[in-house]
Amino acid sequence: MIENLNKYIDHTLLKANATKSEIKNLCEQAKEYNFFSVCVNPVNVKFAKELLEQTQVKVCTVVGFPLGQNEMTTKMFEAQMAVENGADEIDMVINVAKLIDGDYDYVEQEIKSVHSVLNENTTLKVIIETCYLNTNEIVKATEICEKAGANFVKTSTGFGTRGVSIEDVKTIKSAIKGNIGIKASGGIKTREFAESLIEAGATRIGTSSGVAIVNEKKELDMCLFKRKKKAKTSYQDWHNNINNFGFNEKYNSLSGSFQNASANGESLQENNDKIVKNDSNNVNNDNNISKNVNDNDKNEQFTDKK
Amino acid sequence: MIENLNKYIDHTLLKANATKSEIKNLCEQAKEYNFFSVCVNPVNVKFAKELLEQTQVKVCTVVGFPLGQNEMTTKMFEAQMAVENGADEIDMVINVAKLIDGDYDYVEQEIKSVHSVLNENTTLKVIIETCYLNTNEIVKATEICEKAGANFVKTSTGFGTRGVSIEDVKTIKSAIKGNIGIKASGGIKTREFAESLIEAGATRIGTSSGVAIVNEKKELDMCLFKRKKKAKTSYQDWHNNINNFGFNEKYNSLSGSFQNASANGESLQENNDKIVKNDSNNVNNDNNISKNVNDNDKNEQFTDKK
Repeated sequence: MIENLNKYIDHTLLKANATKSEIKNLCEQAKEYNFFSVCVNPVNVKFAKELLEQTQVKVCTVVGFPLGQNEMTTKMFEAQMAVENGADEIDMVINVAKLIDGDYDYVEQEIKSVHSVLNENTTLKVIIETCYLNTNEIVKATEICEKAGANFVKTSTGFGTRGVSIEDVKTIKSAIKGNIGIKASGGIKTREFAESLIEAGATRIGTSSGVAIVNEKKELDMCLFKRKKKAKTSYQDWHNNINNFGFNEKYNSLSGSFQNASANGESLQENNDKIVKNDSNNVNNDNNISKNVNDNDKNEQFTDKK
Repeated sequence: MIENLNKYIDHTLLKANATKSEIKNLCEQAKEYNFFSVCVNPVNVKFAKELLEQTQVKVCTVVGFPLGQNEMTTKMFEAQMAVENGADEIDMVINVAKLIDGDYDYVEQEIKSVHSVLNENTTLKVIIETCYLNTNEIVKATEICEKAGANFVKTSTGFGTRGVSIEDVKTIKSAIKGNIGIKASGGIKTREFAESLIEAGATRIGTSSGVAIVNEKKELDMCLFKRKKKAKTSYQDWHNNINNFGFNEKYNSLSGSFQNASANGESLQENNDKIVKNDSNNVNNDNNISKNVNDNDKNEQFTDKK
């Protein structure tokens, strides 16, 4: 269990229809849970920066997002505007088509160009959109990112054909020679998956489910606490009942039973652990169900990705 | 049946991973089918323009696509670059969140700002992303587009929660006071749907299925032709068989059968028409199946829309 998971999280809201009150809510949550940053669209940077003034929470934004098929100069312009508006971190999307076409110089030059307009302290994460790349291409993309001065390789936009996989993170990690970070993003909805990604090498997590992920731990703790309390109470009730029914005189003869009860107490604890584990699975199942429902919603409504 | 459907079509390829050869193929198809335009991402405008030199096919590109959550100045910059690179048409995405928030002045100002950097002859289409709007908001968006000087209201990016609906087009049409166009886009994969949208008021169709849609008619014509020919052949075979089997002397006595055969010939024709109609349904079913398969692919692979 990773204790400070909140500090790995870029609390993310990049929907086209994110209203002002949703952005405000995002920033309030980021303060409450002390997330590493909020990740918002460029037009919301100034507003988020104002809301997060005098907090530790950074403001992250995106450039060329989510397709990355803009002119290089447009990405530079957008990055420069973001920095002027107060962005601490920039997540830029590479031109993944150029990478697939083998035009590595272009990809490198574009990252360098965006890098050149940032402040000294601005963090640059580079989104390589792993869903469109094979393993060799992910390795190549990582090498280019590192060479061009990126601080992080970021896996996904969340708008591609899939989100991050454990394998993506392992591949990126294997290709990094120096000391740059890995931001895993896209489809991270459970604490278990987030932690698996960190174990695989991710040093930052981009997710719109940060609150649920952090609360998942709280819920588990609360569940464990309640069940422990209940187990203790059950034994106490049983013990009291013995006394209430006037069996005090038979107490000594019950010492065997008492020991059994103690043993039961322990096995109850073991059961609790199992239950908690099952609950954890249920949480995952719930998330999967919820994911399926969401995907189905998408499936029903979404008709064309041109 | 709309005869010149090809001239309604913006032949579209806006995928993040569209390679150079795919863009080339798109432009070749556009020439072959004489589509109105190709619609490509900004980074591909120059290349498409070169490929389509001395043809009638226009080059269309997108601005602030697909989220529209960029700074206003970034959209202006991107539009200006596109025009310099040779774009004939610009499909810009509004800030749909601002519209939902009721900041109509912002939305209008943004369209005017992008409009101000275009050439006199550049067509401006404004994408309002209907999937996030209710009917009143679609009406309001349309009014703003018209007021701000747009040449077209465009329904969808194809990256939202759904594509265009017939209802969208009807709503937009009802809100237009002057003489601007309607571009229907997102999820248009069959000729039937494209024609329904045109009947509802669309004057342009954005689709990545232009070739399939146009070929759908050819396939239907070919199917009709083949089955008519087959029906005729069957009757001829039957008639020849009669002669070959030496029943010539009984020809007169068969006149009744002959008449029946003629009647059968007609009913075969009727059957053909039914078959063609069924085939047409099959084509639609195939499209639906293919759509479902695609959606399922997406469903399986796609994990998070942040």
